[in-house]
Amino acid sequence: MRELKVDLGERSYPILIGEGLLHQPDLLRSYVRGTEVMIVTNETIAPLYLEQVERSLEGLRVDRVILPDGEQYKNLDYLNRIYDRLLECRHSRNTTLIALGGGVVGDMTGFAAASYQRGVAFIQVPTTLLAQVDSSVGGKTGVNHQLGKNMIGAFHQPQAVLIDTLTLRTLPARELSAGMAEVIKYGAIQDAEFFAWLEQNAQALMALEPAIVAEAIERSCRCKAEVVAADEKEGGVRAILNFGHTFGHAIETFTGYTEWLHGEAVATGMVMAAELSRRLGWIDQQAVDRIAGLVRACNLPVTPPANMSPADFRRLMAIDKKVLDGQLRLVLLKQLGDAIVTAEFDAEKLEETLQATTQAADA
Amino acid sequence: MRELKVDLGERSYPILIGEGLLHQPDLLRSYVRGTEVMIVTNETIAPLYLEQVERSLEGLRVDRVILPDGEQYKNLDYLNRIYDRLLECRHSRNTTLIALGGGVVGDMTGFAAASYQRGVAFIQVPTTLLAQVDSSVGGKTGVNHQLGKNMIGAFHQPQAVLIDTLTLRTLPARELSAGMAEVIKYGAIQDAEFFAWLEQNAQALMALEPAIVAEAIERSCRCKAEVVAADEKEGGVRAILNFGHTFGHAIETFTGYTEWLHGEAVATGMVMAAELSRRLGWIDQQAVDRIAGLVRACNLPVTPPANMSPADFRRLMAIDKKVLDGQLRLVLLKQLGDAIVTAEFDAEKLEETLQATTQAADA
Repeated sequence: MRELKVDLGERSYPILIGEGLLHQPDLLRSYVRGTEVMIVTNETIAPLYLEQVERSLEGLRVDRVILPDGEQYKNLDYLNRIYDRLLECRHSRNTTLIALGGGVVGDMTGFAAASYQRGVAFIQVPTTLLAQVDSSVGGKTGVNHQLGKNMIGAFHQPQAVLIDTLTLRTLPARELSAGMAEVIKYGAIQDAEFFAWLEQNAQALMALEPAIVAEAIERSCRCKAEVVAADEKEGGVRAILNFGHTFGHAIETFTGYTEWLHGEAVATGMVMAAELSRRLGWIDQQAVDRIAGLVRACNLPVTPPANMSPADFRRLMAIDKKVLDGQLRLVLLKQLGDAIVTAEFDAEKLEETLQATTQAADA
Repeated sequence: MRELKVDLGERSYPILIGEGLLHQPDLLRSYVRGTEVMIVTNETIAPLYLEQVERSLEGLRVDRVILPDGEQYKNLDYLNRIYDRLLECRHSRNTTLIALGGGVVGDMTGFAAASYQRGVAFIQVPTTLLAQVDSSVGGKTGVNHQLGKNMIGAFHQPQAVLIDTLTLRTLPARELSAGMAEVIKYGAIQDAEFFAWLEQNAQALMALEPAIVAEAIERSCRCKAEVVAADEKEGGVRAILNFGHTFGHAIETFTGYTEWLHGEAVATGMVMAAELSRRLGWIDQQAVDRIAGLVRACNLPVTPPANMSPADFRRLMAIDKKVLDGQLRLVLLKQLGDAIVTAEFDAEKLEETLQATTQAADA
């Protein structure tokens, strides 16, 4: 078992990574402080892992909420179902919520934990690659609003993140690819050596070779944990984790959160952000090609939806959270492995990038 | 102008108390950090004070949400209206929310600020006595759930609390009385001298004599600020502020949050908690009589709804947030001016208290 620490003073917590961790009964249980547990999961994951998790919590009072599966349910209405269950089952402030599932389950459970009785404990048990390397680490929780993604939420750190790499065996190939987008991101924004390692090991990763998978997850989590420890509430450097996300969120909003997976949108967003970085003269064509190449090698898209125009991007990017006082801030690359957050870029170059990367014309 | 500080390290903030503070334009504005402001108020308060507040913010971008007035709107649906407005008006993370109104507006605005884009700034401008002495200070924010009061929320401290005592002139007498319940509470739980002062000045207070009102608000806020500074997130001593509230919440839930004002329920709850304290042998009959006497002098009720039985209390108190791992914890008086939070009391005495103070028999 590999163990990393997210260093946040009083709010520090471990990330545990290994094969078969869900079958180690005392492990999960050791992070539950009280006697009440509410497992939050979804209809896809429940038949696969719920029984195992419940078995490992024997002796505690365990209740459960099973949500429908999908980003379209990540909203206040379904969040309210978690509150309903907690109150119906009369859970106290000493309860512990367990998020068993992907990023949607993790984000919703985390926000339910942040806000139930003004804050209770929770544990992340991510079952998708995306959640394992990204959303389960760092304490960002929340739900979507019809006018924007993740617009309602809180920073709330878990007690622990427990990553059982065996769960990736049941993950659809498309979702495995989507998770790879965030793994690629860590290399692109802060670790050129890791990026090169990924280029060499992309096939082995996609084939889920155990040692390679564990290594990629650990290095990704380490990148994320470092950035989060330096800037828990995204006052500064943490924003580099949004590389590809401003373009990506525009794609997700445009497609109503249903057609594109988050990682797919981020993958295309990274290629667009890299293209803008090149047009600003910061990186060369080879770096853009390497990013696009690795994205393609993971079976991820490199171009936005065919019917999405530059005007759509302009409109949807303007309400992204990265907009500070009306100024669009983007994460761009100074070189491969080195990102910055900046509002100081030539707006013409953004326009050229949108024109060059989209397929639909402005209406 | 009187000024107090709530001492919470990085999250410290001032409470400003005085007549006509809303007419000092630079005052409110000096606590707005960005250029965007969203005023949240209700249909009762808007015609009285909204224009004045907007005038004092000239030069900033000011938007507004006007909610219906009443505790029954303190829920996720109406909270969502605040998010709707923020997103429709494209407010960024640098926005400042201003809560202009009573406790409901303050709690909802505070929670909207805590959760919009994972946390933005807000300022409390409480216009009811209840909000001025209690809910606007201390960072508790949230909304009700149909299964319990304040079950969804966060701790989120404001930038400042601005109390213009002139606003009490437009407050209905019944709401002024309700606010007095919390003022009485501070005397009862931690300041016997203040309690005696209130007994002497109750009439002057109810008549809104300016110096007396400002003094009562300042002393109340000072009590609250001290307790909050000692225990921001209610891990311990802060719970004494819930004196009368566990019984009171049961009354509010029983009556659907509409018939009884919060302060009225708390007033009766304090008398019930005092009665239980007496039956436990901790305070004498005279202390109970003094509390009931001051409650009555402020035109507040001393007995629960006629149709509410001991069984109703037992049922509704069991889901109160003060229940820790299934054990009912209550705030009780060791003497007038000294409260403790405890689960260690003779349950028989609670039963006797419910039998003695309710008018309806168990079904």
